[in-house]
Amino acid sequence: MGAYRAPLADIHFLLNDVFQADEVFAAMPETEEVTKDLVAAILEEAAKIAEQMLSPINQSGDQEACHFDNGIVTTPKGFKEAYEAYSEGGWSGLTGDTNYGGQGMPKVLSAMIEEMFFGANSSFCLYTILTTGATLTLTHHANEELKNYFLPKMFSGQWSGTMCLTEPHAGTDLGIINSKAVPDAQGSYGITGTKIFITAGEHDLTENIIHLVLAKLPDAPAGPRGISLFLVPKFLVEKDGAIGAANNVNCGSIEHKMGIKASATCVMNFENSKGFLVGELNCGLSNLFTMMNYERLSMGLQGNGLAESSYQIAREYAKERLQGRAASGPKLTDKVADPILVHPDVRRMLLTMRANTIAGRALSLYSAFQLDISRFHPEKTVRKRADQLVSLLIPVQKAYCSDRGFESCVLGQQLLGGHGYVAEWGLEQNVRDARISQIYEGANGIQALDLMGRKTVRSDGELWALLVEEMNTFIESQKNNTEMQSHLAKFQDLIQEVQVTTDRVIANAKNNPDEIGAASYAYMDLMGLTLFCFMWQRMLAAAYIARAAGNGNKEYLEGLIKCGVFFMQRLVPKSKSLVAEINAGAESLMALTASEF
Amino acid sequence: MGAYRAPLADIHFLLNDVFQADEVFAAMPETEEVTKDLVAAILEEAAKIAEQMLSPINQSGDQEACHFDNGIVTTPKGFKEAYEAYSEGGWSGLTGDTNYGGQGMPKVLSAMIEEMFFGANSSFCLYTILTTGATLTLTHHANEELKNYFLPKMFSGQWSGTMCLTEPHAGTDLGIINSKAVPDAQGSYGITGTKIFITAGEHDLTENIIHLVLAKLPDAPAGPRGISLFLVPKFLVEKDGAIGAANNVNCGSIEHKMGIKASATCVMNFENSKGFLVGELNCGLSNLFTMMNYERLSMGLQGNGLAESSYQIAREYAKERLQGRAASGPKLTDKVADPILVHPDVRRMLLTMRANTIAGRALSLYSAFQLDISRFHPEKTVRKRADQLVSLLIPVQKAYCSDRGFESCVLGQQLLGGHGYVAEWGLEQNVRDARISQIYEGANGIQALDLMGRKTVRSDGELWALLVEEMNTFIESQKNNTEMQSHLAKFQDLIQEVQVTTDRVIANAKNNPDEIGAASYAYMDLMGLTLFCFMWQRMLAAAYIARAAGNGNKEYLEGLIKCGVFFMQRLVPKSKSLVAEINAGAESLMALTASEF
Repeated sequence: MGAYRAPLADIHFLLNDVFQADEVFAAMPETEEVTKDLVAAILEEAAKIAEQMLSPINQSGDQEACHFDNGIVTTPKGFKEAYEAYSEGGWSGLTGDTNYGGQGMPKVLSAMIEEMFFGANSSFCLYTILTTGATLTLTHHANEELKNYFLPKMFSGQWSGTMCLTEPHAGTDLGIINSKAVPDAQGSYGITGTKIFITAGEHDLTENIIHLVLAKLPDAPAGPRGISLFLVPKFLVEKDGAIGAANNVNCGSIEHKMGIKASATCVMNFENSKGFLVGELNCGLSNLFTMMNYERLSMGLQGNGLAESSYQIAREYAKERLQGRAASGPKLTDKVADPILVHPDVRRMLLTMRANTIAGRALSLYSAFQLDISRFHPEKTVRKRADQLVSLLIPVQKAYCSDRGFESCVLGQQLLGGHGYVAEWGLEQNVRDARISQIYEGANGIQALDLMGRKTVRSDGELWALLVEEMNTFIESQKNNTEMQSHLAKFQDLIQEVQVTTDRVIANAKNNPDEIGAASYAYMDLMGLTLFCFMWQRMLAAAYIARAAGNGNKEYLEGLIKCGVFFMQRLVPKSKSLVAEINAGAESLMALTASEF
Repeated sequence: MGAYRAPLADIHFLLNDVFQADEVFAAMPETEEVTKDLVAAILEEAAKIAEQMLSPINQSGDQEACHFDNGIVTTPKGFKEAYEAYSEGGWSGLTGDTNYGGQGMPKVLSAMIEEMFFGANSSFCLYTILTTGATLTLTHHANEELKNYFLPKMFSGQWSGTMCLTEPHAGTDLGIINSKAVPDAQGSYGITGTKIFITAGEHDLTENIIHLVLAKLPDAPAGPRGISLFLVPKFLVEKDGAIGAANNVNCGSIEHKMGIKASATCVMNFENSKGFLVGELNCGLSNLFTMMNYERLSMGLQGNGLAESSYQIAREYAKERLQGRAASGPKLTDKVADPILVHPDVRRMLLTMRANTIAGRALSLYSAFQLDISRFHPEKTVRKRADQLVSLLIPVQKAYCSDRGFESCVLGQQLLGGHGYVAEWGLEQNVRDARISQIYEGANGIQALDLMGRKTVRSDGELWALLVEEMNTFIESQKNNTEMQSHLAKFQDLIQEVQVTTDRVIANAKNNPDEIGAASYAYMDLMGLTLFCFMWQRMLAAAYIARAAGNGNKEYLEGLIKCGVFFMQRLVPKSKSLVAEINAGAESLMALTASEF
């Protein structure tokens, strides 16, 4: 298997040339110390962890998988040591609230680190992501006492976290969960129920596991408005913070699944386990939504990370594998064959991977910047605008980056032929590991529905209009950049196509609510393509400027520009089919009775 | 995991209503006894094997996988018994030459049986497919002595076969293989070399394994014209046909791979193993091509079979899983939620699976009919025309059906969400098993290149013109069928789009040979879409006629017609993007230097 290399050149180009990260951070008091040098130093350390610690135990972790024995989960060889090193390096609290031991770093930074860790070892990264999500929820909604007891040990990596939402009969539709919370005499609750698909629900990496559990009080209203959120530790915590008695939280089994085999996916049984209310009663779901955008961003990053890993392996293979001759005549006349990189169809696969992976990275960064601005910016109107952009961007980033990530992993596997299908090269593992990112944290169909319904039709296109403003501002800023004009013209055509399509769906949905679901997936794809195109405009503009100024690595910039041209010429036309599919409407989908399927 | 059910209703509708199989068979002396009743009886028996014998050991076979111990390969529990029953039932010789113990049945019949077996248990089916391929090659090219020694025992299932082509450094490019064949004093050859990715190279299902091996004589011309084909048995055969001494054919290891884990994929070492020449010296590659179309058809059938399996499970899940409410208001007011089948996006997934799977089945049958006509028809001109159609159809059937099959398996998995990612429901296994059909027997990129280069540009569009004739004849036959007119109009537009695109690529390729590879994959997709559209025209026409006559199952016909309308409205528009991608040409693909990737 090829060793993973952190894509630092891309990340620095995006942060510095495309997004001017230091200007953004300098404008916000809480991030003004996040300088270019600090960012570079942190990223370099993270790259070392990804390359030297996580990548080497990725394939062995997949082959060994987690062990389950009578409630005890053991992670594969090397995971415990890696987690210790990760904790000792202070990575667990990187973005955490500084009042409780966190380091208060922006999401932009941790997003790029997550991408690296996912690319190097997705199973490992999941243990860290879940803790980050849980601490974020606690930071926003728990009372001071809970925060003081739990956050410092979670930021230090001593304790880990989970999110316990899904039940056997309730996944997407959490309104129908059965888990119960019964108030006790101490002001806490007895939690009883079974949760499934709980990532990191049980493992041997930390001395305690802090579960955030959705449950309903006996007299709670029916549906989603009767759900509350509870902190339920695996071991109770003594007054002095020491580990106390076991809390009747038991792992019933772990799932045998397609991939991320070194990540424990657990069935968790709670039996009158002591739980502490987080936030207000019956506000559990909406409290969770505050961290949902961060969690979903991570899933898109997983797609990018694994796509990058697959691209690196496939690129090397294409340069080294000798097979057949170039159509235009032999290139390596002293060898029996030419490297397969000479073939246009091999280049199509590589460039599709490359163009989508760096655009996905850019879109993830763009989204992370909006998350940081909505958190740190001193002006309320700026925060609000960023928050609105986040709510439009995240479902697309989650779904489109994980879909394209999976597609890239499949393309990389295809490029290697039979060698891609066997375990040795690691490409088949990437396909299996990437596949889950399209499913968890809200399956991509749910993201598409969120985008089309809540974010577009119900906002009457307001969020889309905001994005158009962003895009037009950029276009306007490039009006004197002659190298950009043909790209921008295509980009404007695309924006216009989306505008007409958006208006049409909003109008159609007024008469038939099924038009939303009928359009949603193709609309998400169309929006993803448009955002990738926006990112490519920004990358191309920055690359032309850097090239003209003689800055940066010339070969890198040339490759980037040519990849952008490829994207504009060969991938952007996919919009035409998507628009036609959306225009076909709901009728043919809804015509069949159940028994006609 | 859901139990597999053979899609007999579809198969009978296609054979009888769409393709009038009995008329085709009646017109050819060697198949005139293949009546509708005989076909139905054989298919029913095959369905029982698929459902009752192969499906039950599919998941257990995946979990146990093949064992390798010091050269010995053991198949998972139940495979040996199933193979015995398969052999005793006479299935191994179903299409075999009647002069050597085969039953001389048409490929049309065995194609549908292969689809069932692949759908029920792809790993098992591979052991049978390889033997069929090997016997076909021997039938066409081996001398009488070899045929008499080997074919009867292979048709009886006592001995199995393999195809040993690939070497570590030579897959797609077989011209550079290193395996050597040295003539010996008995008129046979000593074969030495290492072959990899050999399906069923070693196993415990049969008492002997007959390898067909590509190797070069010491003085052979360089490249593909210096390759010869040899029969190399695992055990030599005595004069009386009894098993003799071991032949220095050894399995070095088996591959650990993404799927088809119960199929042994072997590294085979030949060390001065005795081999018998099959066909003329230095004609090994072209001899193999006689069976290549049959082998490739099988790979498309694997895609269809697994897609059917995934569709069946996903459809039941969509009807039973209660989650959320219909956009138009609750449907099951006495339940906590509606079945997810109410959601348009769930229907989009199911209908995409259904529309492509039955069209793939129809295209596979259409291709199999041409194979049978090219083999059995008494008139040479008819045989030749069928053979020309085969050479155009097969690369598309192989690549497009396996691509759509994989896509359907992924969609089915997506529909089940987390339940699709865990092993229990079987959908993740289908994804892993289907993935290989896009890779082996010539990766799909190679199929696309064959279609675009050899079959289109080099034939100057002659084969495409033949297909247009076929399509126009059908359109002409429907001119009085009023229900078909709007579908046919769209179909004609599509044909016209392909015509213009074909002409353009042929013209462009004259100036730049890289234009072939630059267009190939999108062109294969476009041709696949066009052929699926052709199949849908034929299915829709037959369904309208049956409905009007009151024949057949009304609900089945309604479902089929509505699925066809879905295909025409929502899947056909994909042509627009494909055409745009083809028109973008080679320039952006070839612009990058190797180090700019």
